[in-house]
Amino acid sequence: MSTLQQLDYSSLQNLHDKTKKEFDAIKQQNLSLNMARGKPSAEQLELSLGLLDSVNSENIGDNYSILNYGMVDGIPEAKALFKKLLEVDTEEILIGGNASLNIMHDLISKALIKGVIDSETPWNTEDKVKFICPVPGYDRHFTICEQYDIEMISVDMLEDGPDMDKVEELVRNDASIKGMWSVPKYSNPEGITYSDDVVERLAKMETKATDFKIFWDNAYAIHNLTDQPPRLKNILEACKKHGNPDRVFMFASTSKMTFPGSGVAVVAASKENINFIKQQLSVQTIGPDKVNQLRHVRFFKNYDNMLEHMKKHAEIMKPKFDTVIEILHSKLDAHDIATWTEPDGGYFISLNTMDNCASEVISLAKEAGVTLTGAGAAFPYGKDPRDRNIRIAPSFPSLEEVEKAIDVLCICIILVSTEKFL
Amino acid sequence: MSTLQQLDYSSLQNLHDKTKKEFDAIKQQNLSLNMARGKPSAEQLELSLGLLDSVNSENIGDNYSILNYGMVDGIPEAKALFKKLLEVDTEEILIGGNASLNIMHDLISKALIKGVIDSETPWNTEDKVKFICPVPGYDRHFTICEQYDIEMISVDMLEDGPDMDKVEELVRNDASIKGMWSVPKYSNPEGITYSDDVVERLAKMETKATDFKIFWDNAYAIHNLTDQPPRLKNILEACKKHGNPDRVFMFASTSKMTFPGSGVAVVAASKENINFIKQQLSVQTIGPDKVNQLRHVRFFKNYDNMLEHMKKHAEIMKPKFDTVIEILHSKLDAHDIATWTEPDGGYFISLNTMDNCASEVISLAKEAGVTLTGAGAAFPYGKDPRDRNIRIAPSFPSLEEVEKAIDVLCICIILVSTEKFL
Repeated sequence: MSTLQQLDYSSLQNLHDKTKKEFDAIKQQNLSLNMARGKPSAEQLELSLGLLDSVNSENIGDNYSILNYGMVDGIPEAKALFKKLLEVDTEEILIGGNASLNIMHDLISKALIKGVIDSETPWNTEDKVKFICPVPGYDRHFTICEQYDIEMISVDMLEDGPDMDKVEELVRNDASIKGMWSVPKYSNPEGITYSDDVVERLAKMETKATDFKIFWDNAYAIHNLTDQPPRLKNILEACKKHGNPDRVFMFASTSKMTFPGSGVAVVAASKENINFIKQQLSVQTIGPDKVNQLRHVRFFKNYDNMLEHMKKHAEIMKPKFDTVIEILHSKLDAHDIATWTEPDGGYFISLNTMDNCASEVISLAKEAGVTLTGAGAAFPYGKDPRDRNIRIAPSFPSLEEVEKAIDVLCICIILVSTEKFL
Repeated sequence: MSTLQQLDYSSLQNLHDKTKKEFDAIKQQNLSLNMARGKPSAEQLELSLGLLDSVNSENIGDNYSILNYGMVDGIPEAKALFKKLLEVDTEEILIGGNASLNIMHDLISKALIKGVIDSETPWNTEDKVKFICPVPGYDRHFTICEQYDIEMISVDMLEDGPDMDKVEELVRNDASIKGMWSVPKYSNPEGITYSDDVVERLAKMETKATDFKIFWDNAYAIHNLTDQPPRLKNILEACKKHGNPDRVFMFASTSKMTFPGSGVAVVAASKENINFIKQQLSVQTIGPDKVNQLRHVRFFKNYDNMLEHMKKHAEIMKPKFDTVIEILHSKLDAHDIATWTEPDGGYFISLNTMDNCASEVISLAKEAGVTLTGAGAAFPYGKDPRDRNIRIAPSFPSLEEVEKAIDVLCICIILVSTEKFL
């Protein structure tokens, strides 16, 4: 079989017509499949139902201080558990509410109004505030920037993390670049884990802004799909080594370990940063939901169990990832019209069509009853400059539905691609 | 017995010496009593232990959407329950996380960076932002203003709410006054409930700022100590009637109904305001802890049960309030050196010493092992201009401890007052 580029006009026309028929037939099926968001499936949620029983009126004991006000930085037991996840000390972690996104948002809004620990002036008293956004990336990070008029500078993701030559050049020369987003392990959407070299360079690089901050969203820290997961270098350690201890805020949460709506979020940073955050936080709240923290501590008991628990998630997730990749290979390899990532963990597969095809593919898939993440979602301002990126989120639908949805996706890609060549 | 003012020098000296001896004797007892914060007691927390059992792995049913992401404005069942508490419609309420203070803080920080629904420009692009603060008031409200350099203008509380002549004059003439704090029912610390007339005038008054907002912190909405509680006029209705539907944000929470650390917070406002808040909130989080909302819905079942539940709180609280007031009468009436409120609900009793005595009284009490709320805490910037206000929080200690602590307080007041006269 020849690639699309190699086909003569009539073969191309034949392929197009055949694919169009397949597409029309699928439309008759009135499908309703959703691969838009990285939501755990019902089967995954069931893994954590025991969490609902781990604290009850019988076993609460004399933990009444946990029921009452206070402990704005979380309960010690939760610190002891989650510090292992982010490989930090007890004084370097703070346990929050149910959403790490909320903590990130709050840190940015406070930075704008008050500044961060090493700011000379609040960020929003500056003419301009800019953030570096590795692309493709996580749409909700970008939405926070957009909401607060923080200018986003896209930097391409390479195979081992963001293009560090570009990042270094930018931050060295532009004092208005105050921060950078990162999903360093199994990045959203590509599933890339930053290499040691990238981590090291981020920690070491010279920044013109004295109060530059890396938002290190380690959302998929232990969300492995393999038994030999890649190891992410500890950026806080690296920052300390290079004399920039306050450069990084690390985040994690149990949203995709237990329940997305009722998890526990954590932030880790230098002791000084954590104390600074704690002081700001104490203006905002008298404390997080400590009962839910205790639920998680009792449910997981220890870090090893947490890792074991994630293996059960992998058992559910891996077949879905495998199915997606298998179908993509079988339907698209011959045509040479798309590339995609094959991650060892995380929640997404990132697919690139030929340039200027993604919007149309996503729109056709929608027509055929398959909802994908919106075109351009993984880029600042929702604009994919090459209109080629499609984020595939296989977690929520059943294996059968994933199969069906990816079939449809492939048909749409072939259809749009043949039309481009014709 | 004569009042202190009427006593001759030697009688005054005798009273002083006698009281000093009592004080010294108490110091020997090494007391450690805390009446500083409005924390529910263990006995009160026990009333809600059933909340921990109301959702479990057996009875969660097919409520998996509650475990997953989404529903940024809360679950419909919680809206149905809490809309009765604040007397609003379903479209006028949003159910949040565990802390109403957090929602207030967020609304202010977003107003500063982005503005509120009717702002022409973000608040912090104005030269100055000011808030009206009825005094004495809630220290944590004032701390938010202080944190964000919002200038606080104190307005005295009268017997039926803030001095409205003053409030009306201020907001009519000063466009930089963007907001006002209010604890309208059983105010913190005086326990005053705003009269219908005050509510009406707040709703109707002309404000120079087009985006003026009242932060209506109805923290003690049903925290009654009597069977005939005062009725608070519905300010949202009044605002609508007077053509200012977007003027007020109303807040409540279950912090002092169930668990202070693990309650549910709600905000109510006009439908347009709620939609605006919801849009802002969706940038910040993918949703609140909906399981905890469901726990509350199942625990209370309906609004009548919530009222019944609060009667059990009153049974524990009322004897403490009665004891405080009884002891204050018996020890201080004769001397005419202090006045205090006798609230029908809420968490506090507000006591005024003679001018320039409160700091010394609080410091002496501390010396004798009784921690009271810091002097000036109920005033902006922590400064009580007459240094006379003491907030008494009798909820947390046992009845015996309350008795002891108020004894000590009275001794300290007499001691400091006699010293002033001598």
